[in-house]
Amino acid sequence: MAGAHVTKVGIVGIGFIGSDHLHRLTKTIANVEVTAVCDIVPNKAQKVLDEQGLKAKDYSDYHDLINDPNVEVVVCTASNEAHYEIVMAALKAGKFTFCEKPLALDAQQCMDIINEEKKLGRRMLQVGFMRHYAPEYVQMKQMIDDGVIGNPLMVDERHYNQTQPEEYDTSRSIIETAIHEIDLDHWLVNDDYASIRVFAPKQTRHAQNAQIKDPQIVMMETKTGINIVIEVFVRCQYGYDIKCDVIGEEGVLELPTVPQVATRLNAQYSTAILTDWKARFESAYDIEFRDFIGHVSQEESPVGPSAWDGYIAAVTADAALKSLDEDGEKQDLDFPEAPAFYAAK
Amino acid sequence: MAGAHVTKVGIVGIGFIGSDHLHRLTKTIANVEVTAVCDIVPNKAQKVLDEQGLKAKDYSDYHDLINDPNVEVVVCTASNEAHYEIVMAALKAGKFTFCEKPLALDAQQCMDIINEEKKLGRRMLQVGFMRHYAPEYVQMKQMIDDGVIGNPLMVDERHYNQTQPEEYDTSRSIIETAIHEIDLDHWLVNDDYASIRVFAPKQTRHAQNAQIKDPQIVMMETKTGINIVIEVFVRCQYGYDIKCDVIGEEGVLELPTVPQVATRLNAQYSTAILTDWKARFESAYDIEFRDFIGHVSQEESPVGPSAWDGYIAAVTADAALKSLDEDGEKQDLDFPEAPAFYAAK
Amino acid sequence: MAGAHVTKVGIVGIGFIGSDHLHRLTKTIANVEVTAVCDIVPNKAQKVLDEQGLKAKDYSDYHDLINDPNVEVVVCTASNEAHYEIVMAALKAGKFTFCEKPLALDAQQCMDIINEEKKLGRRMLQVGFMRHYAPEYVQMKQMIDDGVIGNPLMVDERHYNQTQPEEYDTSRSIIETAIHEIDLDHWLVNDDYASIRVFAPKQTRHAQNAQIKDPQIVMMETKTGINIVIEVFVRCQYGYDIKCDVIGEEGVLELPTVPQVATRLNAQYSTAILTDWKARFESAYDIEFRDFIGHVSQEESPVGPSAWDGYIAAVTADAALKSLDEDGEKQDLDFPEAPAFYAAK
Amino acid sequence: MAGAHVTKVGIVGIGFIGSDHLHRLTKTIANVEVTAVCDIVPNKAQKVLDEQGLKAKDYSDYHDLINDPNVEVVVCTASNEAHYEIVMAALKAGKFTFCEKPLALDAQQCMDIINEEKKLGRRMLQVGFMRHYAPEYVQMKQMIDDGVIGNPLMVDERHYNQTQPEEYDTSRSIIETAIHEIDLDHWLVNDDYASIRVFAPKQTRHAQNAQIKDPQIVMMETKTGINIVIEVFVRCQYGYDIKCDVIGEEGVLELPTVPQVATRLNAQYSTAILTDWKARFESAYDIEFRDFIGHVSQEESPVGPSAWDGYIAAVTADAALKSLDEDGEKQDLDFPEAPAFYAAK
Ligand SMILES: [Mg+2]
Ligand SMILES: [Mg+2]
Ligand SMILES: [Mg+2]
Ligand SMILES: [Mg+2]
Repeated sequence: MAGAHVTKVGIVGIGFIGSDHLHRLTKTIANVEVTAVCDIVPNKAQKVLDEQGLKAKDYSDYHDLINDPNVEVVVCTASNEAHYEIVMAALKAGKFTFCEKPLALDAQQCMDIINEEKKLGRRMLQVGFMRHYAPEYVQMKQMIDDGVIGNPLMVDERHYNQTQPEEYDTSRSIIETAIHEIDLDHWLVNDDYASIRVFAPKQTRHAQNAQIKDPQIVMMETKTGINIVIEVFVRCQYGYDIKCDVIGEEGVLELPTVPQVATRLNAQYSTAILTDWKARFESAYDIEFRDFIGHVSQEESPVGPSAWDGYIAAVTADAALKSLDEDGEKQDLDFPEAPAFYAAK
Repeated sequence: MAGAHVTKVGIVGIGFIGSDHLHRLTKTIANVEVTAVCDIVPNKAQKVLDEQGLKAKDYSDYHDLINDPNVEVVVCTASNEAHYEIVMAALKAGKFTFCEKPLALDAQQCMDIINEEKKLGRRMLQVGFMRHYAPEYVQMKQMIDDGVIGNPLMVDERHYNQTQPEEYDTSRSIIETAIHEIDLDHWLVNDDYASIRVFAPKQTRHAQNAQIKDPQIVMMETKTGINIVIEVFVRCQYGYDIKCDVIGEEGVLELPTVPQVATRLNAQYSTAILTDWKARFESAYDIEFRDFIGHVSQEESPVGPSAWDGYIAAVTADAALKSLDEDGEKQDLDFPEAPAFYAAK
Repeated sequence: MAGAHVTKVGIVGIGFIGSDHLHRLTKTIANVEVTAVCDIVPNKAQKVLDEQGLKAKDYSDYHDLINDPNVEVVVCTASNEAHYEIVMAALKAGKFTFCEKPLALDAQQCMDIINEEKKLGRRMLQVGFMRHYAPEYVQMKQMIDDGVIGNPLMVDERHYNQTQPEEYDTSRSIIETAIHEIDLDHWLVNDDYASIRVFAPKQTRHAQNAQIKDPQIVMMETKTGINIVIEVFVRCQYGYDIKCDVIGEEGVLELPTVPQVATRLNAQYSTAILTDWKARFESAYDIEFRDFIGHVSQEESPVGPSAWDGYIAAVTADAALKSLDEDGEKQDLDFPEAPAFYAAK
Repeated sequence: MAGAHVTKVGIVGIGFIGSDHLHRLTKTIANVEVTAVCDIVPNKAQKVLDEQGLKAKDYSDYHDLINDPNVEVVVCTASNEAHYEIVMAALKAGKFTFCEKPLALDAQQCMDIINEEKKLGRRMLQVGFMRHYAPEYVQMKQMIDDGVIGNPLMVDERHYNQTQPEEYDTSRSIIETAIHEIDLDHWLVNDDYASIRVFAPKQTRHAQNAQIKDPQIVMMETKTGINIVIEVFVRCQYGYDIKCDVIGEEGVLELPTVPQVATRLNAQYSTAILTDWKARFESAYDIEFRDFIGHVSQEESPVGPSAWDGYIAAVTADAALKSLDEDGEKQDLDFPEAPAFYAAK
């Protein structure tokens, strides 16, 4: 329609999640045009374009994509190792940027990105922690903020996957799995982390080798003393299962799951548990991009998870890995207040 | 993106539901442009365009909108009384047409529309029975078709609204409320209706006058003998509540509802019940239009509810009103097989 | 303990339910002595006594048991056909009497019993409709009486059994299955029945012959217009499942079931559904006898279901069978107020 | 009935729980006679006898009750401080003994009792950890033993009370509240404890003074590495709430609660949460005594929780208090296998 601005997006990295976002941006988000794509593997991006019946400029060098005047927004879905350099380049070029989680590989890289973004004088970057957009977490956060349960005192969470291959080692349970809760929890309870420890109970027989620690238990304490327990169990066999209970001074909140038709069959009353994580937060991804594009299409700063959130997650995950290494030893964390630059969310 | 066809839509009727679809088509559906609008009330359409920050051609006569070469698809969201003439005009002009439910005011009008559509040699019309797209009904339908519960024998449904004004009289409980279940049920159980009766138990004290029959009980029997009971209660006070259980030879299926955060507070374990019907099937509307636009943008026939479905609903609702009038007397229904024209869904 | 009166009970009929009550009265009810038993089949009662490690007088003629001065209370668990004569004899002998449901074979027999009991000047008989003692029904009844949902308008019930043999014919679905709901519902909603109709939807393939009507739908209307729908399905395959929802002017009450450990296994979140009806109302039987014995041991009239309740159930079941025979024709019912003799409950 | 042995019981301590057991033994347990009672407060026992309409010998000195030849079984419901001497005296007298939990005040006292019981050559003592008899725990235990979830890896529990007075201090959260889970868990998962730690997150504003630690988190590890987390929160405000999830290699088991009628009212779907702990495990107490009396009436050893269980609970609770004192420091536990004397359960 005349008058509706169509936002021009370039995507760097057309792997699993990149293809998914390509489809999302062209099929389920209004007023977006994906004008350019790029993948480090030759022909890969073009093949995905063809599969999805799309046309776009296919760059072999991401710098060219970033500098294309026909790209207003850069979406970074490259491998984790490449996030840092791509995001830095996009920010240096002054482009709105969406980077899948994790923002970068360590705390120092995140801090570099923060400093680069500050030079732009306003937020231009969002990190893809999509659960902030899941309606059930949004509702829970609102209820906490409304004081429905009084001050939160404890948080009980589970992040269970049906299974993972042997290469999904002990550290990935933290940096790819628990990272979602680590990112969410300080936002949910409006507090900063003061410490973290991670230890492993009895190993499941479904771990493919003796070195894998699965399940793991992550315990965090916030500055005001809230206790958070996250059970991470990535070979639980029965499904993809996410739990989040927040216990407050007046009562408890419990996160619901995706609705399923209930059955009464064979002496069992049952509802299906999902086995695929993508189905669990599918609508969250759509809402995430609708929100991000909605803001940047108006030349406004994005309001979703920021580089600061990416930094907190990185520092906390680093401490978690150290604790695992040191047999569950408590690691102190000491975050400053979020810089004013990021606070005005 | 070069290559993505942008479908040009004109909307006739910019009232409550028309404004909602205008917003949906421009903000949450990809590759659509609303090029024209029209409302019988002068300035009304323009006012809504302004409110939503949109630009489009604003016609005072819907014939002009239909004939605009910049309109490929007509969406009819005018008042129920005007559906017939608008849809007929759109079909005569050979345009893809989406008409909100009900398709028309009576069975004869629906049959006229069917005959008009047949002249086009293929389906070009879809009726807005959006519940066919609600994921929970789609899942339930799939489970029935997969034989999970064997042959269906009984269906138990509730369609409860929190409240309605005095002008929501006895007939509207059928033609605006139960109409959704009347439309859905033959699709769900793959059968045709053989009879219907409607009667009213004890009146709720919340009915604003003595003539209103609320609640009402609709009972239908299909050709193979499946018994369907729908409780229609539009002043139930406690919320908007939809129930659908299908009982088969091997077990039972139960429709879930929208997930809500559970609370443990004040000696009660609770989840919220919606009070607003729009929130209950919000995603169904998005999926409905994404499907409809997806097909017509490729010059394919739509595959959602057809004029034939609109006809079945109209005939059944007429018989329901007759039964109510005759104190619950059973009304026989005798539908032919769906014409081949519509069967190839 | 000195001071605690030990009530002396004689049981007539030591079949399935009689053996169960014998065990209950000697093992789970305090201050009862079963002093005598009797069964029409020679040696049957003695065999059961031996199995349960008990001693009691074993009569071959029930009149002798009734007249034994060492029997204060007669429990009648004989075959349905024999209830009438045994209960009449027990009342004529002036003994407190507990009779399993049904009280007798037809309305006339029930009325004879009522007249016999009236001669005693006070209630001395209780009928074994044990669901009145099930804690979940007691709670529901209390909530209705407290006005939690305002006036009841509709009742939705299911009485499903996993399966029944071929000899469990169409009439037994009423007189042995639906009879429980027929008995309960007027008590639950504090109203009298005005009509009943019974019809059969599509037959389940699990019915062993073509004459069996299964499932059946019982519809009753009360004097004030409350509509009651009972689905009776005695070969539902998946379990023993009892449902009771009461819909009132302000909200809905739903009967819970027996608690079960929930499992998360194989992509299903499940709880077991019972398959054996005895486990469903086991505690109700204990509470029933504790209440009955508690009263009669103090020479007080029993306060549970009375001969009048037995009469209402018999008349209603008779009309139900007539309706089934007449293809679902509505049968009017016209009960007087319960006689004052029975009202002072 | 001639032939049914009536077991003669004497109760020492007729306070809150003693009165309750007096009522239970005389009103809901078959074939028991309470022949004697005793309370340290003059006239207290007689007053309770009168209130309950009972007669029994009322001793002022418990030694006389124990030595009364008309007392076969001693039930000790005196204050915790008196358990040791009463139980020792009962065992020395060779009487079957039921002692409410805790068995004694410390591990040494428990070991003395164990040694005294061993002199009798067989078990004659049962400790009142009634949850072992709660049907939901029995079902859960059976499912674990049947391998339904494979090897247990983690246990998540909550023991929440609505509120407690100021004198319910930090230690009572362990020795009166968490003691139930401490006792249950090693039985549930068939393992021994290897360590315990207790720490306190943020204090609830409902704690009456600053010294009270509420909530508390108890963490135990078993010899094979199972991790157990118990949240103890005795002023949670919303009700009496018990949770127990056992996570195994193949799936999860979740403890159900007492069934309640569900309501749909005021835009909430709700079930009541109990506020009174007695109602939660009421039937467990009945089943506990029926089992205990059932065995001892046949001169058999009781099979419920033993002195050894009392000892394990005492040692573990002591270590828990030490950990609380040492700011959550982990306390190692090293239990030997249960002595053969107790193993033959
Ligand atoms: Mg993400
Ligand atoms: Mg619609
Ligand atoms: Mg009965
Ligand atoms: Mg106890």
